[in-house]
Amino acid sequence: MPRNFSLKKSPLAPINEPKLMPVQGLNLYTFSAGLYSKNRDDIAIFVFPKNSSVAEVFTKSSIRSFTLDWNEKILKNKKIHALFVNSGNANTFTGNHGKQSIRSIVNQIKKTYLINDNNIFVASTGVIGEKFPISQVLKTITKPQMTKEWMNSARAIMTTDTFPKGVSVTSMIEGKRITITGISKGSGMIEPNMATMLGFIFIDADFGSEILNKLLKENISYSFNSISVDGEESTNDTVILASTRAIKFKKPIKNVNDKRIIDFKKKLKKVFMKLSELIVRDGEGATKLIEINVLNARNEKDANTFAKSIANSPLVKTAIHGSDPNWGRIIMALGKTYININIKKLKVYFGKYLVIKNGTAHSKVDDKIISKYLGKDNIKITVDLGLGIKSSRILTCDLSKQYIDINASYKT
Amino acid sequence: MPRNFSLKKSPLAPINEPKLMPVQGLNLYTFSAGLYSKNRDDIAIFVFPKNSSVAEVFTKSSIRSFTLDWNEKILKNKKIHALFVNSGNANTFTGNHGKQSIRSIVNQIKKTYLINDNNIFVASTGVIGEKFPISQVLKTITKPQMTKEWMNSARAIMTTDTFPKGVSVTSMIEGKRITITGISKGSGMIEPNMATMLGFIFIDADFGSEILNKLLKENISYSFNSISVDGEESTNDTVILASTRAIKFKKPIKNVNDKRIIDFKKKLKKVFMKLSELIVRDGEGATKLIEINVLNARNEKDANTFAKSIANSPLVKTAIHGSDPNWGRIIMALGKTYININIKKLKVYFGKYLVIKNGTAHSKVDDKIISKYLGKDNIKITVDLGLGIKSSRILTCDLSKQYIDINASYKT
Repeated sequence: MPRNFSLKKSPLAPINEPKLMPVQGLNLYTFSAGLYSKNRDDIAIFVFPKNSSVAEVFTKSSIRSFTLDWNEKILKNKKIHALFVNSGNANTFTGNHGKQSIRSIVNQIKKTYLINDNNIFVASTGVIGEKFPISQVLKTITKPQMTKEWMNSARAIMTTDTFPKGVSVTSMIEGKRITITGISKGSGMIEPNMATMLGFIFIDADFGSEILNKLLKENISYSFNSISVDGEESTNDTVILASTRAIKFKKPIKNVNDKRIIDFKKKLKKVFMKLSELIVRDGEGATKLIEINVLNARNEKDANTFAKSIANSPLVKTAIHGSDPNWGRIIMALGKTYININIKKLKVYFGKYLVIKNGTAHSKVDDKIISKYLGKDNIKITVDLGLGIKSSRILTCDLSKQYIDINASYKT
Repeated sequence: MPRNFSLKKSPLAPINEPKLMPVQGLNLYTFSAGLYSKNRDDIAIFVFPKNSSVAEVFTKSSIRSFTLDWNEKILKNKKIHALFVNSGNANTFTGNHGKQSIRSIVNQIKKTYLINDNNIFVASTGVIGEKFPISQVLKTITKPQMTKEWMNSARAIMTTDTFPKGVSVTSMIEGKRITITGISKGSGMIEPNMATMLGFIFIDADFGSEILNKLLKENISYSFNSISVDGEESTNDTVILASTRAIKFKKPIKNVNDKRIIDFKKKLKKVFMKLSELIVRDGEGATKLIEINVLNARNEKDANTFAKSIANSPLVKTAIHGSDPNWGRIIMALGKTYININIKKLKVYFGKYLVIKNGTAHSKVDDKIISKYLGKDNIKITVDLGLGIKSSRILTCDLSKQYIDINASYKT
């Protein structure tokens, strides 16, 4: 059983908890199955109308949770009827017992919520390789406890998170108000291609799963796949975009290029960006949000590799933690990609301050000013390679002693 | 100017300082040019007899120190007459001034030590991108201070190292005693393919540079290229194997397969292994030495990728730091390579304790026993993939709060 953290809320957490708006047709349930030693909610169930649509992306890890095998199978139906999420246990590397547990959960949900199909998605997060506490879970979910408070669901899916994460926006389509409400979790094991990270975005517009799939793929690369806390990638990462299809249109929307959804797409992007940013803001031990922009690379792959190398460099992250204007570590992180760089063309900025130019320190750079800038809790590093036109943006955070504290005793 | 660290000696340091033996024909000089705020030696010069032989390998980083460009040029002569090493400043990203500084150092050494060729190798280590303190350096090295104490040289090349690193062994060839003495430095920015790491191995056997080159390449992969502290790779990493050729043989040795050097090769390997292990033992903030063995991979590349992924995982390193038997993180580190694994065949051991078997936790595994084992300062992790016959071994260390302390304020 994971230890309870009495961690202080991240200093980068939003000051006020957001107000989350209900998505038409969706019912929320939260439970406490006692999966943590402290009393807290640890299961969230979302029940959709029949024939709700869904799209999902998950970790590329070659060892992944059994839940993802199950979801992949279900995904072929392109429909979602319920979503089950538990924290406290990842149901990964749990053998046949883990697989059977998923089947038992699905059967119990069908019984309790009177669902007559298998379109039930399952997401688990928590410790890897511990026996899945199936009897506790089954006993608990037989007594449905409906909630109207979306933040309760956001809280139930937390593991080492120090604050619940959610965003709501609305958009008008054909004069009808569409709600986009998303929740996410994650604070460690976070890297591009996702993390111990779950993101669930719910809408009520009548979109089929093909449109959802395109919208998800479009948004994921700039959001959940462009964040990093520690360069780790988990076995359970999942982002789901699902719709209750409660709000119908005169003429069905069958194409992502439909002009009626221009504003909706902008709003949806905002939700993806915000949900993923909140995860970095809750990075284990994070005290500073760091935005890395790599500009003018030869190609997108290079741009990503450079940005990722900086974002995952413990030396860069500790230097920024200590407001140390040690830009040499950016150079080190660029160099260790082995990708060719023209140092004569390379420019590096901390915020608006140019620190590297013409293959050496910019003559006007003043360590004291840079150090003061690095004292802020929102840092921008810009690398202009001057080699091409491709760019990459990654959000990350600094590396502090608290990361060690949290992770040196997670299981015990 | 780098801050002086009053760091406590690493708990993994050897209890006694090793006794280093002189290499025939080699003269040692050490200096204090005031490159650190505290008074300490910061320059070492090694003067060889004319026509001494040399082989060198250096960082693959695409942004590297100017010193390496210089050395690469000199290396074509296959001869070494002097080796200059300074700590405190990496002479990387230092523009034309940095390049000119190398030329000035070489000229000054030629004058002071009456050397009439350019076969002078230069190695710099310390902060990247700070103006190279050439006038201080030149002023200092004009007054040669010979030393007989090899450990003085080992001390002069330290940066954040908490102890000087050296090994000496001897071997008989044709009844003559050959000495192998090596020194190394490095504690952070350490990863396979080397690091802020310098290694200098000196011998006095009459071997030409071709043999040295083969011996160096042979030994580097299992030693300096198989260690990792933080997954960082520096712009200055260098390992040099050089011989004064003072001890001649009846019949010249021209082949690494010459039976007369079988024992010598064993001893040389020992020196490479020990020098690189000492660097991990001085890993910034290290409290535990971790040996990772990946067995029975499909191919060597896969084996290395798996071993490296575990060695560089901050979550694995913090878990071991906290003696937390969280083997799920080994699974995570294996999975995030995206390389196919047969989880039914996968076995993972902590020391002699089997923790994973048949796709789940080994039924007999007892977290308390594993936790007690992880409390030792010498940890072995073995991953048996059961997929082929290739293996990889990497030495690394745990990740502690002290790593953050050291690196959050290196420059300031």
